Amino acid sequence: MSEHIVSSYDEELRALAGRVAEMGGLAEKLVNDAVSALLTHDLAKAQATVQADAKLDEMQQEIEAKFIRIVALRQPMGQDLREIMAAGRIANDLERVGDLAKNIAKRVIAIDGVFNSKKAAFGVEHMSDLALNQLKSVLDAYTGRDAEAAKAVRERDDEVDAIYTSLFRELLTYMMEDPRKITQCAHLLFCAKNIERIGDHATNIAENVYFMVTGDQLLEARRKIDEMGIAVNEGN
Amino acid sequence: MSEHIVSSYDEELRALAGRVAEMGGLAEKLVNDAVSALLTHDLAKAQATVQADAKLDEMQQEIEAKFIRIVALRQPMGQDLREIMAAGRIANDLERVGDLAKNIAKRVIAIDGVFNSKKAAFGVEHMSDLALNQLKSVLDAYTGRDAEAAKAVRERDDEVDAIYTSLFRELLTYMMEDPRKITQCAHLLFCAKNIERIGDHATNIAENVYFMVTGDQLLEARRKIDEMGIAVNEGN
Repeated sequence: MSEHIVSSYDEELRALAGRVAEMGGLAEKLVNDAVSALLTHDLAKAQATVQADAKLDEMQQEIEAKFIRIVALRQPMGQDLREIMAAGRIANDLERVGDLAKNIAKRVIAIDGVFNSKKAAFGVEHMSDLALNQLKSVLDAYTGRDAEAAKAVRERDDEVDAIYTSLFRELLTYMMEDPRKITQCAHLLFCAKNIERIGDHATNIAENVYFMVTGDQLLEARRKIDEMGIAVNEGN
Repeated sequence: MSEHIVSSYDEELRALAGRVAEMGGLAEKLVNDAVSALLTHDLAKAQATVQADAKLDEMQQEIEAKFIRIVALRQPMGQDLREIMAAGRIANDLERVGDLAKNIAKRVIAIDGVFNSKKAAFGVEHMSDLALNQLKSVLDAYTGRDAEAAKAVRERDDEVDAIYTSLFRELLTYMMEDPRKITQCAHLLFCAKNIERIGDHATNIAENVYFMVTGDQLLEARRKIDEMGIAVNEGN
């Protein structure tokens, strides 16, 4: 750990990390609200989620400005630089998570809150529980500087992917069985994909936390198998 | 324009912008290849596109490292800071464009290259021509520091959105008419969405170019109307 010449440097770093953690809390809330709006047909909550995303964008811009300020004033190296890089990257991922939550909320409005398949609802709920749990765990790992917990989050992303793949197939089956459900199921396909991508962002964050704490990259490429049934190295 | 103490500062800035422009060229190529693989049922090209995306990720990381180095060493202000911020943000958007191209290419492989609706192909082709044109124009605006051209790109995003909305409906109609096409059409829905999002990234880049050149934000929120038929302020 480097010694800082000016004591307020540590405070700046702590304040930055605190702001990222706060952003994480808001991102979690938006995902939670969007999915709950979908499952409970709550149009007002969906509308509120669409509006609330602007706050996340604002926080991300504020974190970016702080990031630039600290890099310019402090010329961070080593552990400090990793802390700052992680904060900037994690804020980017959280901003994207907010966009995905907003997109789910918009689709709740598009299908007018109606979502009448109990089985699909179960799949969506199960998947979003897992994705939210991943997000929560990785934010805890960030706050607790816990590399092992971050690594565990990354390893669990397969579970989200597996549920997504089965939900994708299930929704296609509903479409085939009842063409009147096609529009609704198409929006649900996108909702499911969005939740799966929220899981991917939790994985990105996990990699950044691991690097921040240890200075090592989780180099071994994760083999990701998605609904396309193609094993490729991680990525969208 | 600020005077630089060390002449190589200008060279560093130019090198950074040059690298971003190069990244833009590669991102364009990946989108072009992914869509062409889709339209010509070219599985080998799709596979090559999936592989090639790693290069974009690498370039983005390299640009991020240069970005940090310049901010730490030079403490840029004003125009220089805007140049550097724009470079970092545009590199992020281009990395995402690469992910979207890769995702399209993966879907070409998932549907085994078969894509047998001439009319849907026409829609996809038209839409991707527009999105690619947006991407090309905004990269030219970046290289030429042309704020007006950037603004024009942002204004044209509506065209991509309009084609996407009509394609979304068309694909749902095909699904209803012929349930055997549902799986294929579901992948095409995602391809179309990905192309629409490439257009959104071109718009983000346009906003960054405008800010970089003028120091002003294009504040007036763009009203975006998508397949959900909900007018909301810009965003995913």
